[in-house]
Amino acid sequence: MRIAVLGTGMVGRAIAGRAAELGHEVTVGTRDATAARDDWTEWAATHPTVTLAGYADATAGADLVVNATSGDGSLPALTAAGEENLADKVLLDIANPLDFGNGFPPTLSVLNDDSLGERIQRAFPRTRVVKALNTLTADLMVQPRQLADGDHSVFVSGDDPAAKKVVTELLTSFGHTDVIDLGDLSTARGTEMLLPLWLRLYGKLGTALFNLKVVR
Amino acid sequence: MRIAVLGTGMVGRAIAGRAAELGHEVTVGTRDATAARDDWTEWAATHPTVTLAGYADATAGADLVVNATSGDGSLPALTAAGEENLADKVLLDIANPLDFGNGFPPTLSVLNDDSLGERIQRAFPRTRVVKALNTLTADLMVQPRQLADGDHSVFVSGDDPAAKKVVTELLTSFGHTDVIDLGDLSTARGTEMLLPLWLRLYGKLGTALFNLKVVR
Repeated sequence: MRIAVLGTGMVGRAIAGRAAELGHEVTVGTRDATAARDDWTEWAATHPTVTLAGYADATAGADLVVNATSGDGSLPALTAAGEENLADKVLLDIANPLDFGNGFPPTLSVLNDDSLGERIQRAFPRTRVVKALNTLTADLMVQPRQLADGDHSVFVSGDDPAAKKVVTELLTSFGHTDVIDLGDLSTARGTEMLLPLWLRLYGKLGTALFNLKVVR
Repeated sequence: MRIAVLGTGMVGRAIAGRAAELGHEVTVGTRDATAARDDWTEWAATHPTVTLAGYADATAGADLVVNATSGDGSLPALTAAGEENLADKVLLDIANPLDFGNGFPPTLSVLNDDSLGERIQRAFPRTRVVKALNTLTADLMVQPRQLADGDHSVFVSGDDPAAKKVVTELLTSFGHTDVIDLGDLSTARGTEMLLPLWLRLYGKLGTALFNLKVVR
């Protein structure tokens, strides 16, 4: 697949690197591809097949788009990517609406009767938004077998069953063994609202290398 | 221990029944002990050592108080129990602030930068509030070994370490094997905000007999 990964941070690099390793044609999208930060240049040097482009150029040629930007950067980045470029495409949305305005722990800027995933879907109605992977650390998103041989759970939420299937297959190819389809995109409220617990567990355990398993 | 369980619903009965079985002296508190519903009478007949009393009478003689009322019933029930009766006591708070005003799934009436647990603590500053067991179904709260031989997690949140120890020991006596101390009472925001995900999993799995395990 041709995959556009929007965002050059930890999550973007993890997804881009792993997808390239699995043979996908990966372009990372960023605001200004001519002004890459030093740490990106370093990362890119070890991932020669991954190319960098502006948000719109990266998205235009993609089969699957991944939103790996920050919560408050998501709508601006997707707007820059362009509604036409995003039309009919599957958008794997990993962002969480974390608000660090009042320090740590952050609160959520959208929750309860709405979610960032739903906001993105409303802003881009022709895009097939699937919320997933926003409940675990970047390393485990793409290499889940490093923890308990993958014996833990991830979730997908979305209104388009075929789009969820595409994302589920990608997650399975990463090594996930328990991908739970929660239902329509409003179920993303549940996974986004998991973040406050995740952040406290992170503080308590002293490592981000943990995940939840739905025992049933 | 002398345990007062406030609330005659599913959660109250589960806690009261199990605590009595383990040899504790259990009184269930209710608004009007002379007006018990038929289904309570039936339950009580099979639990002859458990007594029923008004909120204040049940609380007055207790070492440990359990809030097993509904989210919107919690502050009224505890007010009826009486600030003096609750002073210095450990209060195990199991309630979730679910608001069914807009149908299913419910939203939360307090969240993000506050929690029901913290509201209760502010209303009763001399009481030692510990939030726990609000993340799983009543049957599993008290008989966790029936699922994966207890290989799943529960959480405690509270400002008083000794109070958390009392609750942790009670949970361990119920059969819990992984009781995670998240930290101070503000961490209850995380466990209360887990409810939206729990409710969607309940819908998806078609059973409440599931729980989360923190895999690390």
